[in-house]
Amino acid sequence: MYFPEKLTVRWIAQAYDEGMTPYELLDEIIRRAEKNEEKNIWIVKPSRELSAKYIDRLPTDRENYPLWGVPFSIKDNIDLEGVPTTAACPDYSYTPEKSAFVVQRLIEAGAVPVGKTNLDQFATGLVGTRSPYGEVHNAYQPELISGGSSSGSAVSVALGMAAFALGTDTAGSGRVPAMLNTLVGYKPPLGAWSTSGVVPACASLDCVTVFANSLKEARLVDRFASVYDENCIWAKAYEKKGEKLPEKICLPLEEPRFYGAFSHIYRKKWENAVQRIEELGIPVERIDISVFEKAARILYEGAYVAERWQDLKEFIENRPGSTFPVTEKILRSGAKPENTAAKLFENLHDLQRYRHLAHRLLKNAVLILPTAGGSFTRDEVRQNPVETNSLMGLYTNHCNLLDLAAVAIPENEADKSYPFGITVFGRSDSENLICAVAERFSDSEAI
Amino acid sequence: MYFPEKLTVRWIAQAYDEGMTPYELLDEIIRRAEKNEEKNIWIVKPSRELSAKYIDRLPTDRENYPLWGVPFSIKDNIDLEGVPTTAACPDYSYTPEKSAFVVQRLIEAGAVPVGKTNLDQFATGLVGTRSPYGEVHNAYQPELISGGSSSGSAVSVALGMAAFALGTDTAGSGRVPAMLNTLVGYKPPLGAWSTSGVVPACASLDCVTVFANSLKEARLVDRFASVYDENCIWAKAYEKKGEKLPEKICLPLEEPRFYGAFSHIYRKKWENAVQRIEELGIPVERIDISVFEKAARILYEGAYVAERWQDLKEFIENRPGSTFPVTEKILRSGAKPENTAAKLFENLHDLQRYRHLAHRLLKNAVLILPTAGGSFTRDEVRQNPVETNSLMGLYTNHCNLLDLAAVAIPENEADKSYPFGITVFGRSDSENLICAVAERFSDSEAI
Repeated sequence: MYFPEKLTVRWIAQAYDEGMTPYELLDEIIRRAEKNEEKNIWIVKPSRELSAKYIDRLPTDRENYPLWGVPFSIKDNIDLEGVPTTAACPDYSYTPEKSAFVVQRLIEAGAVPVGKTNLDQFATGLVGTRSPYGEVHNAYQPELISGGSSSGSAVSVALGMAAFALGTDTAGSGRVPAMLNTLVGYKPPLGAWSTSGVVPACASLDCVTVFANSLKEARLVDRFASVYDENCIWAKAYEKKGEKLPEKICLPLEEPRFYGAFSHIYRKKWENAVQRIEELGIPVERIDISVFEKAARILYEGAYVAERWQDLKEFIENRPGSTFPVTEKILRSGAKPENTAAKLFENLHDLQRYRHLAHRLLKNAVLILPTAGGSFTRDEVRQNPVETNSLMGLYTNHCNLLDLAAVAIPENEADKSYPFGITVFGRSDSENLICAVAERFSDSEAI
Repeated sequence: MYFPEKLTVRWIAQAYDEGMTPYELLDEIIRRAEKNEEKNIWIVKPSRELSAKYIDRLPTDRENYPLWGVPFSIKDNIDLEGVPTTAACPDYSYTPEKSAFVVQRLIEAGAVPVGKTNLDQFATGLVGTRSPYGEVHNAYQPELISGGSSSGSAVSVALGMAAFALGTDTAGSGRVPAMLNTLVGYKPPLGAWSTSGVVPACASLDCVTVFANSLKEARLVDRFASVYDENCIWAKAYEKKGEKLPEKICLPLEEPRFYGAFSHIYRKKWENAVQRIEELGIPVERIDISVFEKAARILYEGAYVAERWQDLKEFIENRPGSTFPVTEKILRSGAKPENTAAKLFENLHDLQRYRHLAHRLLKNAVLILPTAGGSFTRDEVRQNPVETNSLMGLYTNHCNLLDLAAVAIPENEADKSYPFGITVFGRSDSENLICAVAERFSDSEAI
């Protein structure tokens, strides 16, 4: 039987129409996972043991289930019933009795979980190398980073082992790996997708996200995942609005910073993207993005790291040696004496001001930035783990702090060399604007 | 000319119809302020100098201005153009070039500012005695506290020197003085009234409020004050809904704690109130209120005091001796080493959980509690300034932390001995329910 490189929801539906069975598809996924073992994608890899019960329970009226038999992978900080959740820290592992709310919604829509994916430990990182389960390789250039922290999720989709994957995104973990593996990374507004059954990173900023082969397929997943969870303390109800173009697209006044050995490649691709954006038929305005930059700095330079520390300190203090060294160092910085409650209030008040300004700037508008301004080899990251990681977040860190929604899309869907992408940002109440612009940009590629 | 003890908006409008002039009314207010000088109500007392320009600019089409010529007083942590704002700290004083957004809205509706009122310094206190401008006396029993921190504002209305007064409310400052001086205290949801031009106490929790002689008159002020201020970083847009009775009224399962030498009086009045509540024709449910109590404790026992410290520390450190001793002690507690950023995140996560629970409990419902469970003599507060103050906040401190709206109403509008009142709490999106219940309770008094 023929299987395409990418498992799109669309191809899968057609293949089922033509007689393929879910087990045939699963077996191909298992083969691919074995073939790519050295890429360190999985913490719990695809198997008949894991997926059989979901396949066996699939309803017979397939036409009523748009995600019927669609395989998806799950970042291993999100619970799947009966399978250990490690957050990439073996000693932290626990076996949940029920699946995360979002996972459950997708299973009920017919989707089939195929495995738990590797990640930067405790979702702290944007590189995909901070895991005792090994460094996740980039889908196309194994010496390059995959991006993180949802590294395995992204690569599992890029290499055709899942039609979509769940990630999480606090600082950019649902967007950076999307770019580096030529995928769509869809980050809903804070609280739109339940975080019940998800290991917290910064609980007040965490989002569950989806990696998919197209925006359309990401939106299909959103339809089932964005259900208000009345038991999630971070849940917010959002009104679903029809897609609509914004009054304008904001682009940064100054040229973004590109970094690393391949910065010239990324700069050129950004210039291409800007040219295409200017030809979309939507007014473009260059704006001073310093408010977004200032917000971004608060995430790691301010007292915010204390949120990660607060939730993990008991584990880290009680289990010395259990945490990945660079991760522990970062988490412990949340406990520095300068991180006082007063300092945090200073940060929170600054953020309130920045959020207010950003939401004014983005009234009936979207902002487009590079998803990231470069990439690194895994070796470079090993040499310089903190600085390389910080650079990867230059254009992502502000997003959740400012209560924005975002969608990361490839600049060129066929790109397998140094994949580049752009992110469309909008206010949390403006997903419809973001998606309309992202669609139009993607469509402009074919022209 | 005859002037009633209370200056209601209604009486004033009628008196203007019958030929009274704004200056005649102002002169009476000036006389009353002089007569009550020993009560320490004012920081800037009523005068022709202060009010003339507002009276002289009143429009001629009075019928179009429901607040035309209506005198109001302003707590001295809220800006009035050209008049010093002290926050009851002379060394902190500054003279604003423009009025606070809310003050300006009321002036534009025809209201006339008549003075700046005394308060617990930096709005930190619920007693009305923490001011270098003197202890504000209770309107009816001078040896008793007036309540605070909006002490002068409440007493100015109670003693007929203003038809309404602006206060602020972080922990209960717009409700406790309402009860102790037999007034309505209306506390809008967070962000519904702009806090631009207001000295911050806990900026993320501060509300501007109104004291009035009836809920109807408080609501009239709300009509003009609750305008979305796009320049206020804390502003939120709320949909105005029609008044509606809730599905149920929640009352505490356990008898509330009453305290102080007059606790038996307050307990009896609460019992009367409960009986009337049960006869309102709305289902009553007794609920466990521990979630409200736990939230309340976070305000002063947790890291939240650091918010007050953050905004004032520079002033306090640079101007030794400028701050009222008990106030400085409280503010400095925000800088205690145990108040770390991690501790604050623990508080913030707990609060998120409590808020979620409280909003579930109050879906289509309101909660009624005593506004306060007792009172003290000014002498008792002087002897024991911290504990007496804490007790006054037992039933108020949770409100803003849980994102609730509230209206404090008198149990008996004629009560001038030990005035008692109840507060109706609802979710920030349920002002309509609160007001409907408060109206019905007030109406039941006459029966």
